[in-house]
Amino acid sequence: MIWHPYTIQLDSDPPLKIVSAKGEFLYDENGKEYIDAISSWWVSIHGHNHPKLVDAVKKQLDSLDHVLLAGFTHPPALELAHELLEFTDWHFRKVVFSDNGSTALEIMLKIALQYFRNQGREKKKVFINFSYSYHGDTIGAMSVGGDSVFNRVFQSLLFQTKNFPSPACHDCPVFKSPHSCAEDCLDELEAYLSAHSEEVVGVVMEPLIAGAGGMLFHKPSVLTRLREITERYDVLLLLDEVFTGFGRTGANFAYQKAGIRPDMVALAKGLTAGILPLAVTLVREEIYKEFLSSEPMKAFYHGHTMTGYPPGCASALASLKIYKEENRLADVRRLESYLEEGWSKLRAEFPDKIKNTRVLGSVGVGELFTGKVQPGYVNPFAREFRRICQEKGVILRPLGNVIYVTPPYNISKSSLDKVFQAIREGLSAYKIQD
Amino acid sequence: MIWHPYTIQLDSDPPLKIVSAKGEFLYDENGKEYIDAISSWWVSIHGHNHPKLVDAVKKQLDSLDHVLLAGFTHPPALELAHELLEFTDWHFRKVVFSDNGSTALEIMLKIALQYFRNQGREKKKVFINFSYSYHGDTIGAMSVGGDSVFNRVFQSLLFQTKNFPSPACHDCPVFKSPHSCAEDCLDELEAYLSAHSEEVVGVVMEPLIAGAGGMLFHKPSVLTRLREITERYDVLLLLDEVFTGFGRTGANFAYQKAGIRPDMVALAKGLTAGILPLAVTLVREEIYKEFLSSEPMKAFYHGHTMTGYPPGCASALASLKIYKEENRLADVRRLESYLEEGWSKLRAEFPDKIKNTRVLGSVGVGELFTGKVQPGYVNPFAREFRRICQEKGVILRPLGNVIYVTPPYNISKSSLDKVFQAIREGLSAYKIQD
Repeated sequence: MIWHPYTIQLDSDPPLKIVSAKGEFLYDENGKEYIDAISSWWVSIHGHNHPKLVDAVKKQLDSLDHVLLAGFTHPPALELAHELLEFTDWHFRKVVFSDNGSTALEIMLKIALQYFRNQGREKKKVFINFSYSYHGDTIGAMSVGGDSVFNRVFQSLLFQTKNFPSPACHDCPVFKSPHSCAEDCLDELEAYLSAHSEEVVGVVMEPLIAGAGGMLFHKPSVLTRLREITERYDVLLLLDEVFTGFGRTGANFAYQKAGIRPDMVALAKGLTAGILPLAVTLVREEIYKEFLSSEPMKAFYHGHTMTGYPPGCASALASLKIYKEENRLADVRRLESYLEEGWSKLRAEFPDKIKNTRVLGSVGVGELFTGKVQPGYVNPFAREFRRICQEKGVILRPLGNVIYVTPPYNISKSSLDKVFQAIREGLSAYKIQD
Repeated sequence: MIWHPYTIQLDSDPPLKIVSAKGEFLYDENGKEYIDAISSWWVSIHGHNHPKLVDAVKKQLDSLDHVLLAGFTHPPALELAHELLEFTDWHFRKVVFSDNGSTALEIMLKIALQYFRNQGREKKKVFINFSYSYHGDTIGAMSVGGDSVFNRVFQSLLFQTKNFPSPACHDCPVFKSPHSCAEDCLDELEAYLSAHSEEVVGVVMEPLIAGAGGMLFHKPSVLTRLREITERYDVLLLLDEVFTGFGRTGANFAYQKAGIRPDMVALAKGLTAGILPLAVTLVREEIYKEFLSSEPMKAFYHGHTMTGYPPGCASALASLKIYKEENRLADVRRLESYLEEGWSKLRAEFPDKIKNTRVLGSVGVGELFTGKVQPGYVNPFAREFRRICQEKGVILRPLGNVIYVTPPYNISKSSLDKVFQAIREGLSAYKIQD
């Protein structure tokens, strides 16, 4: 009866029925325990059913369920907006609420376009994006995603973008090594901007890690150079930190690792840590001031019914408090060194199967050789690997030939050992087709 | 710090801070009571903080907060899918979960396009929509909306549609009267389809009431004819019942009033009755079977992190139970007659100011003459009217010169009397500019 997302209807195992959860563990109806090594799509950063998160939502439900956010406000939205602006060092001026990463991204695109329109700069219409990027599944979010199985069918509905190869330091698109790198992967983009900046609205990017596109990493200096270029050519830098935000890469936000300040940033996932849906787009003062007008056509019209709803905001406030009180960044540092250790052992054990391993913050990746099978999301290996791990009580969902681990930041060492043991068994069964 | 939705930044009153709610009432920080006569953007159909809704969410949070819905399932999603399919008389086969009306609509568009693509019918790319329609604020949802202040700035990002005048029986686009009407407003659309059906994917429509576009009503026979035409020309009928669903028009779903069966329907708002965000797209068997394949390119790739999250599903299950147990359809019938009485009195009192009144189910509308001021969403009257009503403890937000009331279905008669008294005072102050 449920049409499950991203599911090949005649080539999928039946879904596993989960009835409860606690910390890093999920439980099925027979009481079997599973370690949620992907934090349920990269969201449960404190583990499942954190008591303080649960209590915050319950408490909010005792007073105010909902009030529309046009013409009205309420304490949790006000407090959360303040906390988020403070947590991002007052680099941003306004918080735009929405419901998920796709909508936060679309809001970012729309504000960016209208920012120039409100100045009468109507030639600025083009967005720049990257080849392996993924920003969500709505039409606008798909339009700025790289070409993939996710959006290929829907080309006729997408707006055109100017696309450049994703930076990926383990598989450099311009064939440099760490020693010879001078962020040359952005040369082509810079050349384009030097000729066409009058038409370009902004560059949309997942900073430091392109997630669903295959967990491609780039170093912070790429981001630093991108900020320099975009500033020079009067083009906005629009960061999608839906995945990377709230500690994922070892800093609160990925852009902070590069010491830069984007024009806008989209956040979701870690924002509420997976208890309720909520997203925000943070907007800089310089952008917002172009909307300070009494002309109706200069206002920004975008809302969803539950935009900034009280229980969602209350959960995000509680999550941010837990994040600070329980020192999640220290957890991520610890996790990072465990992930490095785990993957380097496996790499030594399976040198013929593992092409590359890479770790950043709470994300540990092993990319496999695929032989004559095309790498990519729909690689059949993923299904078999998932099944082996699930049997062993570990939830992992490789992106094709890319195995990644990104568990709750506070996962125990013993659980993580079990995760790597499951990966080991999955790799043992893996046969490269020559 | 909050960028409020749909808000002209330098021409808006400061937002009213709401701290609690109960039934049809909102309360500000001074304890002042307001009647929520628009059910917080048409969502709180049982009133605010219904104890059974609150308890259902709390109970769910005690066991399972979240698990991703790809490869996994959980009891609230399974039960809700079953209940929704049963509640819609098993006319649909699959439930696709998402987070809000915009995403439910985009899912409907994407499935419709891919349905034909999966059959190799790649010429089918065009969506038909109506001039005053509103389907949400994401790029895809805006693309199928009528031209308005909501989407005008973003034209360069929207895909093209074939647009026809909205049916509107109180202001017939083809100048017929109820006596002479033979659903002629669809003649042009039918003529187009007879020549171009090979290119058309589907017709997107808000059945019976075009909501945000100005509360335009059309009679069920228009919908009946549209279903006949779309069936004849092998074009999908895609209904947006985000607003009209769950009793709004006096039937559980608006399409039922016309005795028809759409190919898909998008639902949100009344689904959870405003306690948590959730949306679904219901899909017929005939559509779904074209996705029954083991080919990765024939799978449907669309998901949001919190797609079908347990507390959201638990709240929708509770809402549907309340809807049946407390007999909301009987409430809507009662409300409908109160609304008719209230508006006809006002029309008699203000014949020079009220151009038209219309009532359907829980929606009561008074459309005002505007004199030399252009009618439409940004009509300045709305702001002054809102202020007068708010002063009197009544929340109303006219769509320009269109005042509408759509309160919680179970609003008390005495509250509704206060609502009409506030409208009366707002109308008394209204001056038509000649």
